[in-house]
Amino acid sequence: MRFKFPLVAIGLEVAMIVLFHLYVQYEKDQNIPLHLNNTRPTKMDSFLLLYPLFQDVHVMIFVGFGFLMTFLKKYGFSSVSINLLIAALGLQWGTIAQGLIQSHGQKFHIGIKEMIKADFSTATVLISFGAVLGKTSPIQMLIMTILEIAVFAGNEFLVDEIFKASDIGASMTIHAFGAYFGLAVAGVLYRSGLREGHKNEESVYYSDLFAMIGTLFLWIFWPSFNSAVAEPGDRQYRAIINTYFSLAACVLTAYAVSSLVMHRGKLEMVHIQNATLAGGVAVGTCADMNIQPYIAMLIGSIAGLISVLGYKFLTPFFASTLRIHDTCGVHNLHGLPGVIGGLASIAAIALGVAHVSTVTRQAKALGSSIGTAIVGGLVTGLILKIPCWEQPPDEYCYDDSVYWEVLYSVLKENINDKSTSGNLLTLRLHACNAYV
Amino acid sequence: MRFKFPLVAIGLEVAMIVLFHLYVQYEKDQNIPLHLNNTRPTKMDSFLLLYPLFQDVHVMIFVGFGFLMTFLKKYGFSSVSINLLIAALGLQWGTIAQGLIQSHGQKFHIGIKEMIKADFSTATVLISFGAVLGKTSPIQMLIMTILEIAVFAGNEFLVDEIFKASDIGASMTIHAFGAYFGLAVAGVLYRSGLREGHKNEESVYYSDLFAMIGTLFLWIFWPSFNSAVAEPGDRQYRAIINTYFSLAACVLTAYAVSSLVMHRGKLEMVHIQNATLAGGVAVGTCADMNIQPYIAMLIGSIAGLISVLGYKFLTPFFASTLRIHDTCGVHNLHGLPGVIGGLASIAAIALGVAHVSTVTRQAKALGSSIGTAIVGGLVTGLILKIPCWEQPPDEYCYDDSVYWEVLYSVLKENINDKSTSGNLLTLRLHACNAYV
Amino acid sequence: MRFKFPLVAIGLEVAMIVLFHLYVQYEKDQNIPLHLNNTRPTKMDSFLLLYPLFQDVHVMIFVGFGFLMTFLKKYGFSSVSINLLIAALGLQWGTIAQGLIQSHGQKFHIGIKEMIKADFSTATVLISFGAVLGKTSPIQMLIMTILEIAVFAGNEFLVDEIFKASDIGASMTIHAFGAYFGLAVAGVLYRSGLREGHKNEESVYYSDLFAMIGTLFLWIFWPSFNSAVAEPGDRQYRAIINTYFSLAACVLTAYAVSSLVMHRGKLEMVHIQNATLAGGVAVGTCADMNIQPYIAMLIGSIAGLISVLGYKFLTPFFASTLRIHDTCGVHNLHGLPGVIGGLASIAAIALGVAHVSTVTRQAKALGSSIGTAIVGGLVTGLILKIPCWEQPPDEYCYDDSVYWEVLYSVLKENINDKSTSGNLLTLRLHACNAYV
Repeated sequence: MRFKFPLVAIGLEVAMIVLFHLYVQYEKDQNIPLHLNNTRPTKMDSFLLLYPLFQDVHVMIFVGFGFLMTFLKKYGFSSVSINLLIAALGLQWGTIAQGLIQSHGQKFHIGIKEMIKADFSTATVLISFGAVLGKTSPIQMLIMTILEIAVFAGNEFLVDEIFKASDIGASMTIHAFGAYFGLAVAGVLYRSGLREGHKNEESVYYSDLFAMIGTLFLWIFWPSFNSAVAEPGDRQYRAIINTYFSLAACVLTAYAVSSLVMHRGKLEMVHIQNATLAGGVAVGTCADMNIQPYIAMLIGSIAGLISVLGYKFLTPFFASTLRIHDTCGVHNLHGLPGVIGGLASIAAIALGVAHVSTVTRQAKALGSSIGTAIVGGLVTGLILKIPCWEQPPDEYCYDDSVYWEVLYSVLKENINDKSTSGNLLTLRLHACNAYV
Repeated sequence: MRFKFPLVAIGLEVAMIVLFHLYVQYEKDQNIPLHLNNTRPTKMDSFLLLYPLFQDVHVMIFVGFGFLMTFLKKYGFSSVSINLLIAALGLQWGTIAQGLIQSHGQKFHIGIKEMIKADFSTATVLISFGAVLGKTSPIQMLIMTILEIAVFAGNEFLVDEIFKASDIGASMTIHAFGAYFGLAVAGVLYRSGLREGHKNEESVYYSDLFAMIGTLFLWIFWPSFNSAVAEPGDRQYRAIINTYFSLAACVLTAYAVSSLVMHRGKLEMVHIQNATLAGGVAVGTCADMNIQPYIAMLIGSIAGLISVLGYKFLTPFFASTLRIHDTCGVHNLHGLPGVIGGLASIAAIALGVAHVSTVTRQAKALGSSIGTAIVGGLVTGLILKIPCWEQPPDEYCYDDSVYWEVLYSVLKENINDKSTSGNLLTLRLHACNAYV
Repeated sequence: MRFKFPLVAIGLEVAMIVLFHLYVQYEKDQNIPLHLNNTRPTKMDSFLLLYPLFQDVHVMIFVGFGFLMTFLKKYGFSSVSINLLIAALGLQWGTIAQGLIQSHGQKFHIGIKEMIKADFSTATVLISFGAVLGKTSPIQMLIMTILEIAVFAGNEFLVDEIFKASDIGASMTIHAFGAYFGLAVAGVLYRSGLREGHKNEESVYYSDLFAMIGTLFLWIFWPSFNSAVAEPGDRQYRAIINTYFSLAACVLTAYAVSSLVMHRGKLEMVHIQNATLAGGVAVGTCADMNIQPYIAMLIGSIAGLISVLGYKFLTPFFASTLRIHDTCGVHNLHGLPGVIGGLASIAAIALGVAHVSTVTRQAKALGSSIGTAIVGGLVTGLILKIPCWEQPPDEYCYDDSVYWEVLYSVLKENINDKSTSGNLLTLRLHACNAYV
């Protein structure tokens, strides 16, 4: 990491500053005083009304995704810090990429919606990050951020402006897209040497508790995610209500199925941490539609069920047979539930429940999201495979000590350097003390 | 847990979906565009204005209560996860129970107030959960959720609609009710075998730090809890201000008294984690009244003092003499301060400070909340005592390994199964590594 | 701590209640119903619109600052709990101090702005707390809270009302002030005995992860901090946008420079935890000015760079040469970036970008903030040095066991008391188990 990482990071930041200088401007008509004798809504009104929803999404991106990925026993520093790095770059680049496409290359203004959408664009990369967690370097993640958000913005434009499909909670354009993009990258970067697993690829007691911080903040604020850019009034209201109840229903089936499929009927933290969120993903596309709360709960229930089954059966199958190793199981939390979300919207429209879009448009949006994700992910994977991005060797996967001075890495070096023959027990005790 | 828990959980979720299908409808008149030339407030206006307060309460329920209970050294997974399970079921069932009582069995609409009140109803169960933490199974908690919320909704109807009492922050109807309900259940489920304590019923360094996450989010957002359903304008404003200053005052007396009663004048984390919140509970009933901030601070100060004394002297007395073992000390955080809240409102009305209710109404509300809680709790306790709900044996109380595959449970099984005579020190070291 | 701490804490709380009784009143005109046919904005409108921003700041104060300081391996309890104690006292005293100065000693009303400003005043003390963390007693911190907020309120009055300078995000009046006040106190309380460092003054794996909770919540909500008391409309909007992008830019340079200056190009958690926030501090004074987003990003980038360099080179220099030991490195997170913020505002005004103030006014504000901080800090330090405030001896610095019954302190006493010659390894293992 001596010079390459700093140079790439600073280079990208300079590029962002230049691009902002060229294209980004403040909103113009904020100057009407708040509520003062006004008969039309001002932009600033909606700014402050939407700002709390933006902050909820912001917490999801940085605390939610960040801590959700700290479940690995020796990769907490990297999970939460690379998450922050990706998101900080991503929200700048997402502002530019989405703004330029929308404005056809002209200067554009940024308001609260643009801030929310910038955060959304980073979510896509963070989902993909989950698939390659522990097996890639920070530089690779910076590059993936740039490439993935470019493809994401393109697909979003297709879905919204060309196909005119409806995807308010972004089940397809963020969740399915992010998952399949990440799986494609993970497939290209597959490591045969880790076919039998890796000693660091497991959680310990406290790492699982830290991950629950992420889970809970994602769970709590998901109604804001699905409603933040919805049309004010009925539709925004429904997006909140439907997501709230879908998530609640999802929890019960996720727990039930976890207990059903695990040894002796016990529960599994991976399922609790992830599958309880699948209801938020799956109800996303339909969230603002007039589907009634009980249908939202049905969608959530199914998502919880499918997600746990995915963790139990599909993830091992992907790793062994398809040679796609998905560290966080993003396919089960974002991929499958995202597809369920798209299919649910098709069903809702086919059954005449919702009229905001057509079956064809929704099918195109689902196909486009998965298609561009896989193609974009494969190309990105090939670029990331170029052996100059400091990808960690198999031995150092899932290990903070590659990027951080952690005490146990100092100890490890001592052991190796001094070829100490000392008491192994004492050394392991030191390692233990280094953690606590 | 093989089949019973999954069946109960799925059965309850199916019941919820059916009930929502039968009774729950979207709000109707959200369709007036936001602020557009309107001369009357629309429901949607207040929806988005109250939504941040709802989200604050939501954080309290899932992160606040969830992490507050992670203080036990080997029960963090269960605390935070069963908390999520209870709350997810409770908010669905609370919506139904409160809605049906309010609508006299007709279909009803759900808006932001119903979402807030659904979250409130789960708080009651989570308080009771604190009293039986570590000694009950997930199935028992699902059953308690159903029974307690039914009784809660009944008492709330009594207090609000029949007695017409005032209890904006729910000191009586949630806090005192939840605490005495939980104590009654704990009394019925008393385990003589644990009279001398249990080796797992203690905290360790990091479990206490995790608990502080819960404490702080509860503390921060308590003004939202006490004001979320208050009448807009003066009263909502006062509910926020009074709670804010009551909590601040409570911190100082809680710390002072903790130091006074502890060995060598040290502080005690249990007091910091819990008694600092008593000011939020105790000011609840009076929160929207015109009591002046300094009276709110006085109420908070007294609550902090009483709460610490409760932890120091009353909890051991309850456990040894009354045979009621209260794991989290909910009597000191919710029970006593809830009663103080009710009494404070009586005093405020008697002294002519507030005119929103009468002394008689408030006294009825306090009596009804404690009475229905104790009766409801005793009946619930008897139902939970039926030996088919997989209640853990004494030996496995306060132990995640009953419900989760944790590494130390694997180790324990290895020791037992292989009757290893190996170095005990090595095994304990392994156990230590399993945590970190 | 036997009686002194409880007496001081209770005495201060009684004083606060008396002062509130004498001076604090509710806002008056909240009684116009919300939005009802009104043609002018009511105070209550802005109350609920600003309340979410207040809650964001509230989270920063209690969770943000509180957990940020838990990075020390044996000082987590004290960090998060003394933080709560300081803030709880500070927000009461800050309300009084700021209110009395504003009202020239008359009774005054409190609304949402006063609540936000009360929280702000505590931030100043919490910053200074970072400089003396682990080396002072709770009583000393109570005294510092009273003294520092008095000086802070005086300087704020000077800057706002006399100099009429502009400092919306309080880069100068809170961040630079808090840092230099703390450094002055730390200088007076310098301990020659700890010149070579202290065995407890280091982080371990989980303490660093807990600190990241603080970092992330500070980072996320900083736009609210910089905009909460801004003029509604354009300026509040710009304060949010500028802070959002400044922070994002800051992350990239902080990571880059951290990797540049560290051993083998690794990253350093201290930098990630702190320097990523410097962009929020540095853009503060200019946040509501019309500087354009790319300039905000430039300010953030520079702040990230300077902050990391400060941690690497300046903190050791301060400790060794200037005999000022700054535990959390507040000079690098708040001091230097605060000064950058003031200078950036001077540049913006000199270049004609912003017209809200003049170069002279801003220079006076910067000078006054640093000057009063240093003088106030020196006097406070001298008062705290009086040997009756139970300052911990060198040996017990950075050690929770002075104030808390932690398991490892029990173990330590056992070792000392029983002069056990037993296996040291076993004892250390016990100590390890006490943590987990």
